[in-house]
Amino acid sequence: MGAVEPRLLKGFRDFLPAEQAGRQSMLDAITRAFETCGFAPLSTPAIEYADVLLGKYGDEGEKLLYRFKDNGDRDVALRYDLTVPLARVMAQYRDLPRPFKRYQTGTVWRAEKPAHGRFREFMQYDADIVGSASPLSDADCIAAGILALEGLGLERFLVRIGHRGVLNALLSEAGVGEAGAQAEVLRAIDKLEKIGRDAVEDVLATIDGVGRERAGTLLDLLGDGTNPAALDRVAGHPEAAAGVAHLRRVLGVLAAMGHGERIGLDLRIARGLDYYTGTVYETTLLDLPSVGSVMSGGRYDTLLETYGVPAIPCVGISIGVDRLFAALAELGQAPTGATGPEAVVCLMGDSVLAIGMRLVSDLRRAGLRTESVPEPAARLKKQIEYAARRGARFAVLLGESEVAEGRAAVKDLRTGEQVSVAFADLASHLQGVVAKG
Amino acid sequence: MGAVEPRLLKGFRDFLPAEQAGRQSMLDAITRAFETCGFAPLSTPAIEYADVLLGKYGDEGEKLLYRFKDNGDRDVALRYDLTVPLARVMAQYRDLPRPFKRYQTGTVWRAEKPAHGRFREFMQYDADIVGSASPLSDADCIAAGILALEGLGLERFLVRIGHRGVLNALLSEAGVGEAGAQAEVLRAIDKLEKIGRDAVEDVLATIDGVGRERAGTLLDLLGDGTNPAALDRVAGHPEAAAGVAHLRRVLGVLAAMGHGERIGLDLRIARGLDYYTGTVYETTLLDLPSVGSVMSGGRYDTLLETYGVPAIPCVGISIGVDRLFAALAELGQAPTGATGPEAVVCLMGDSVLAIGMRLVSDLRRAGLRTESVPEPAARLKKQIEYAARRGARFAVLLGESEVAEGRAAVKDLRTGEQVSVAFADLASHLQGVVAKG
Repeated sequence: MGAVEPRLLKGFRDFLPAEQAGRQSMLDAITRAFETCGFAPLSTPAIEYADVLLGKYGDEGEKLLYRFKDNGDRDVALRYDLTVPLARVMAQYRDLPRPFKRYQTGTVWRAEKPAHGRFREFMQYDADIVGSASPLSDADCIAAGILALEGLGLERFLVRIGHRGVLNALLSEAGVGEAGAQAEVLRAIDKLEKIGRDAVEDVLATIDGVGRERAGTLLDLLGDGTNPAALDRVAGHPEAAAGVAHLRRVLGVLAAMGHGERIGLDLRIARGLDYYTGTVYETTLLDLPSVGSVMSGGRYDTLLETYGVPAIPCVGISIGVDRLFAALAELGQAPTGATGPEAVVCLMGDSVLAIGMRLVSDLRRAGLRTESVPEPAARLKKQIEYAARRGARFAVLLGESEVAEGRAAVKDLRTGEQVSVAFADLASHLQGVVAKG
Repeated sequence: MGAVEPRLLKGFRDFLPAEQAGRQSMLDAITRAFETCGFAPLSTPAIEYADVLLGKYGDEGEKLLYRFKDNGDRDVALRYDLTVPLARVMAQYRDLPRPFKRYQTGTVWRAEKPAHGRFREFMQYDADIVGSASPLSDADCIAAGILALEGLGLERFLVRIGHRGVLNALLSEAGVGEAGAQAEVLRAIDKLEKIGRDAVEDVLATIDGVGRERAGTLLDLLGDGTNPAALDRVAGHPEAAAGVAHLRRVLGVLAAMGHGERIGLDLRIARGLDYYTGTVYETTLLDLPSVGSVMSGGRYDTLLETYGVPAIPCVGISIGVDRLFAALAELGQAPTGATGPEAVVCLMGDSVLAIGMRLVSDLRRAGLRTESVPEPAARLKKQIEYAARRGARFAVLLGESEVAEGRAAVKDLRTGEQVSVAFADLASHLQGVVAKG
């Protein structure tokens, strides 16, 4: 076989150490936040039977599935999100205690047209509650998401919260109640912020059963979507009453929790996915609104029915890990992580090899990120250069004379300072310097 | 659409919270060990162009690839391991500094016949060094693996280390040098421990160009594989000299590092994969040898050539995460992790909702895993039962009288004890009890 060109598929990415270390720090921070809120981890496979995933994402979504026949000719697909696998789990293991609060992170795949910031493989980080219809559970998911973003050092963001039921009531108030057209209308409404009122009105006007007049009425009712008056106006509508009360309670509880500044009403939000039934939310970075929502979710009380299970209320939130990481980088707040050794032990010849490798082990056991040069050698300068190239803070220099005295020469590569330290004190000395920063 | 049966593909698994929390603790421990040894993280996609993966795993391996046409009719496949993607990365980004020490964990897919302990989707956790031919680098990978296993509380394991070059020299010593038959012979030798000498001799005898006599000679030369005398016997063989010296240095460095008790020579090891060229190693749990190797690897100095890149020496180690986790569980040493709240705030009616939710937030900010009951309610007993069902240590009881005094009643669900604590002291009180164990 001739040489194969080493290359990546479009829409797929490698994450080299500096970036991946930062991503891992970010995932760790989100894990801490979700665990602090009482969520527990779940893991599901990347591959599912295709029929388990079908009929959940709408026609547009379904086209994006990575669907194929496996070696046993089974019709399978890569997961498109982490929500439908959760629903499958809850339907499959019926005796799981409820409410079931789970977090899950993982890669998902969508055969999108690759574009700036849009990938075919990306990570989500979700927290969901299955088995509670209470608005406190909606608030719990949103609060967990807020804590996660704050844990990443973010302060200027807004979780905008709407409600599909309330939006539907507005639709029927405007005379746009046909179930068939409704999904289309919601998708158009969803784009209000992105493309503006006029463009949305044009789209709505062309939808069967809507027309320009009803489109105008609907958009008037909605207002800018964030005005509490819109809630009052629709509260008397029989279809909307329960939704309005639910939404008000979610907002109230989040304010009581001290998250009032991070949240706001926004009735325009519909979300693209078919399975949402109640609250829906998206999150805008106030200093970078153009990246779109970095954290979204909502209530989906009927999703489990598709597996022949009685309706079990569900609500959740999902952090777009990749989009958020890119945004943090753009804001100069990218998390960082360890990408190499703190100390490199330099070995001046074969005679110090054994004692040097023993020191490497000792420093590692003391918790210091340590390695040796790849080969003992006479030339000290090259070894120090090697330690610097590896990004280490310290070069620990070992020659025959040092070993005879039971000491090492420690060179701080940041300051250039060099001191002699007894082997027994080496770990505590290095830790002391690191602790000073 | 009718109801879809919620089900999993054979060979694929869900990990429910208790198990997944333990797996995450295990992955965290391995991460710490690999970082301590100076390795840095890398992430690569799950899907690669098929030709990037082909020709690396041998015919048997290749049949197990999940290979399919994507939506753009590209010939793609799910990754089979993490080693070949690393080689692709190093061939693609030629200016990465070397030696490049990377760790990577991730799911891999192989369409194996599912069996006890054999899955089609499983995790590996690898540490590799690209760009160093030094035996210190082989030792570095093995030491990192040993530290990882020790970090999981394991003490009774043995990393058995062999060398393909030395084994090949033994082969030619026995007159079994044909390149074509060699791969077949190595695969047979690899099974020595599993099926025994006689069975392997039978297999060898049927291979073209081997025959029963040469098979016997070869197996005599090998001995039980762990006898240092076998090394001495072959050291004079011109093809073996370099390998013997390399192998001896690896063993010597690991002994100098204090890992002598964890390692041993074993010349029988061949490893199934085609890409190994030098040292090869496998790890046996001494109290559970039947599970097979939980940590394996070796040197693969020619893999990058398949991408048209000049040979770059590589060496690595791979932990079989799932097999190791199952083994730890069988040994009663399974790692555990958090699977829910430490404290549940019980809300005795709507009037305490706001202050209760504020307390939830305060406790979370203090780092306590906390949640509220899903709905305020009058019946205290049910709420305490709920807290217990959620696995919490504490029920924090809030009624109107408590709130009027600025205090909460804290029930320790482990001891049954109940004390009254001022709101301001709540976090430190709970942390104090938790710290006491």
